[in-house]
Amino acid sequence: MISKSDWEAEVASLRTELLALQQKMLATTPFSVLVLIHGVDGAGKSETAQWLTEWMDPRHIQSSAFDDPTGEELERPPLYRFYRRLPPKGKMAVFFGSWYSEPIEARTGKRIGEGPFHERLDEILRLEAMLAAEGVVVLKFWFDLGKKALRKRLEDLEADEDTSFRVTKREWAHYDSVVRFRRVADEAIHAGDAAGLPWTVVDGTDVRAAGLSVGRTLRDTMRERLAAAAVAAKGKKSSSKAPKVPAAPVDTSPLRRLDLTRSIDEEAYEEEFVKLQRRLAIAQRKKRFRSLSPVILFEGMDAAGKGGAIRRLTRSIDPRRYELVPIAAPSDEERARPYLWRFWRHVPGDGRFVIFDRSWYGRVLVERVEGYCSEADWRRAYSEINDFESQLEDAGCVVVKFWLQISADEQLRRFRDREDTEWKNFKIGPDDWRNRKKWPAYEVAASEMFARTSTDRSPWTIVPANDKRYARIAVLRTVVQAIESALDR
Amino acid sequence: MISKSDWEAEVASLRTELLALQQKMLATTPFSVLVLIHGVDGAGKSETAQWLTEWMDPRHIQSSAFDDPTGEELERPPLYRFYRRLPPKGKMAVFFGSWYSEPIEARTGKRIGEGPFHERLDEILRLEAMLAAEGVVVLKFWFDLGKKALRKRLEDLEADEDTSFRVTKREWAHYDSVVRFRRVADEAIHAGDAAGLPWTVVDGTDVRAAGLSVGRTLRDTMRERLAAAAVAAKGKKSSSKAPKVPAAPVDTSPLRRLDLTRSIDEEAYEEEFVKLQRRLAIAQRKKRFRSLSPVILFEGMDAAGKGGAIRRLTRSIDPRRYELVPIAAPSDEERARPYLWRFWRHVPGDGRFVIFDRSWYGRVLVERVEGYCSEADWRRAYSEINDFESQLEDAGCVVVKFWLQISADEQLRRFRDREDTEWKNFKIGPDDWRNRKKWPAYEVAASEMFARTSTDRSPWTIVPANDKRYARIAVLRTVVQAIESALDR
Repeated sequence: MISKSDWEAEVASLRTELLALQQKMLATTPFSVLVLIHGVDGAGKSETAQWLTEWMDPRHIQSSAFDDPTGEELERPPLYRFYRRLPPKGKMAVFFGSWYSEPIEARTGKRIGEGPFHERLDEILRLEAMLAAEGVVVLKFWFDLGKKALRKRLEDLEADEDTSFRVTKREWAHYDSVVRFRRVADEAIHAGDAAGLPWTVVDGTDVRAAGLSVGRTLRDTMRERLAAAAVAAKGKKSSSKAPKVPAAPVDTSPLRRLDLTRSIDEEAYEEEFVKLQRRLAIAQRKKRFRSLSPVILFEGMDAAGKGGAIRRLTRSIDPRRYELVPIAAPSDEERARPYLWRFWRHVPGDGRFVIFDRSWYGRVLVERVEGYCSEADWRRAYSEINDFESQLEDAGCVVVKFWLQISADEQLRRFRDREDTEWKNFKIGPDDWRNRKKWPAYEVAASEMFARTSTDRSPWTIVPANDKRYARIAVLRTVVQAIESALDR
Repeated sequence: MISKSDWEAEVASLRTELLALQQKMLATTPFSVLVLIHGVDGAGKSETAQWLTEWMDPRHIQSSAFDDPTGEELERPPLYRFYRRLPPKGKMAVFFGSWYSEPIEARTGKRIGEGPFHERLDEILRLEAMLAAEGVVVLKFWFDLGKKALRKRLEDLEADEDTSFRVTKREWAHYDSVVRFRRVADEAIHAGDAAGLPWTVVDGTDVRAAGLSVGRTLRDTMRERLAAAAVAAKGKKSSSKAPKVPAAPVDTSPLRRLDLTRSIDEEAYEEEFVKLQRRLAIAQRKKRFRSLSPVILFEGMDAAGKGGAIRRLTRSIDPRRYELVPIAAPSDEERARPYLWRFWRHVPGDGRFVIFDRSWYGRVLVERVEGYCSEADWRRAYSEINDFESQLEDAGCVVVKFWLQISADEQLRRFRDREDTEWKNFKIGPDDWRNRKKWPAYEVAASEMFARTSTDRSPWTIVPANDKRYARIAVLRTVVQAIESALDR
């Protein structure tokens, strides 16, 4: 137990340090800080959160509670509500509850078994590793209190007329299940320790001491991370360089085996197109469609015909039902957050399509080839992307991924056509010619991407696109089949 | 009636023009385009929207339908759902339905009388005038069809097995009320004409002709507006200059009459603070509070103690229940939209507080004084802001506005203290000294702001803040009283 006067003296110096660190973080924006608050009720969770906002400049700390999700959140993967509250670099967020809440509660209530619980923990730890690599410093606090101490705390609160309102049936129910709750949490804490993403367990017997301990941990972490970021910033200057262009892809690449001569004549195209359009219209009218959300993305070499294929696809969808998201340079709000954030913003609600013209695969394509991110960054992206797509699929999204492939000759022909046709001029510039020189590097990157991110649920569809009609039919057919088979499931 | 071949020839040249104009708009970003689609069902509304996305680059056009609002939207003012879909400059949005839908439907169904209907139209026209001034080109299309033509359209659709699904009970109900619906719409159209914000009425008898006419109107408007923007951009260079600093405010300003010597001693402060805190806690626990959303904003001279007052206020609110929004430079996403957009993003849901540290009043304070916007811009802002706050209040927000006032001497003392105290250093810089020289201009701007934006429902509270304790108590008491009186209403 810490005396009030000792506490005040400690806090006075701690807050000066925290404030200075917060200012430095705001000024240099090397990372954001995310504080997760979990634990036994009555162990000082809300008091500590209150103190954190008092000790530092509260304008740069956002607190969020995650009780019942809203309707918009319910229509999307469970992580959506956490993603939308992620702080930008330089700022801090305090989450009451997090991605741990649901699995811990489900396991405490015995609604899930041990195996699935540990699978959930594994997913969470992969998420946290990704956030860490993307500049989100995640600090996890578990506020602990033994059963006896909890009983006393509740009785004390009830006895005081100023605080008795805080003790409701819910608090006593929590008391009843606290033994099991703590045991389940212990497993989560051990799993974090084992993965090198440890929790800080806070003894909640003395609420003031608990708050102080959290403040100190926060201070030490911020200090250490700011120092490391300063060192890293100094070292960086010499190393940022585009990687060497590798040789052409190995013979096992599906790009090598692609028959680019495939084509379809105009009449057959028209006939097939109308048929597929009708099938898509029928699929969209099915009642089950209302719980599906197709997520369709397009990648491919420049001038491979992504835009044209997208236009033929959207012609078959009610414009009120889809959003088309072109991926170009990120906005400053997007740049300040993990790279997947800008895609999470567009995750569709029930019964709606989202079409991405270029996508999160930019990480392992243009960012890799141009050296916009480090090798470690794009290497970890494969599994991060697989996780992301799994989350989409689990929430009812039908993920369809297209790579449109043309030959180098065909690209040259289309580039020249763009230069020669006035109304196509805007589609060609020096960047395109520059990228063309990196063709082999893009083929290597694409081939590795197919190998690592073609999953059972969302395989890549590689479309020979020298013949535009052939490519457009292939795209539409693949989308129709994917949606029909999701409806049958 | 236009023949198919004529139509195709017309469309071929029209789309080239539209595409070129769209590219120019994207490159120069002088404004955004918002197309509102209303009218009788079966008159070509969805066909036209589909064609627009086909004729132009669909990646820069976002279509939105406004059917049932989501839960998050229902908790906020009706305009929220439209604001969140406003396109950034350079881009285009197509809205199926808009702020007109609800009032026109309500009037058609006789749920509101003629007077209230025209009040709603007036509000809408003020909104549209604001959007126009903020660089949103709003194009309103009314697709019209006589009762006879509508009957024929529905019967034709029903007869064709490919389209019969489009005719449901809803369509026939629409047919029954179409006479009254068109009469009500006619009033909205006339009101728009009278206000210089006209509709384009589109004859829907021939759907292709209707689409073509919309495309032409869009082309003509974009062409005209791009030309005007180019002229304006050329003229601009010479004119952007900070306005002259005016004299001190007239004697009628409440700032002149403020007693800055007011103070409170520490003991009385502590006692009063605890009492007010308790009242706020009790108010928050009332069931009725769950439908209230306090919106509290702080303005005032630099170093007037806004941060300290906010901190004392938030100490009395559960951190999970409020969001604190510091207003600094806008992000690029915010800059590309009307100035109120960045505040609409933070409008709180039910039972939640939002606290703005500086606010939309920046328009008539810093932007006016520094010449960041034109005189016309800040002059129109008073009524725009009053409208915005009315919308908040109508939706259950309790709007509380504070101006913290200190004397020039007290400011000087605090500036020096900030310079001399290491951990306060970050709060003072050359900007602050520069602003201080414009003190009289800020007093003039603030005085005019009080006169024009103190309304019955949300008056300004001007707080003498030379004594920090006095100011903090005054702030907390005003918030408590505002919430209590909203609960009693």
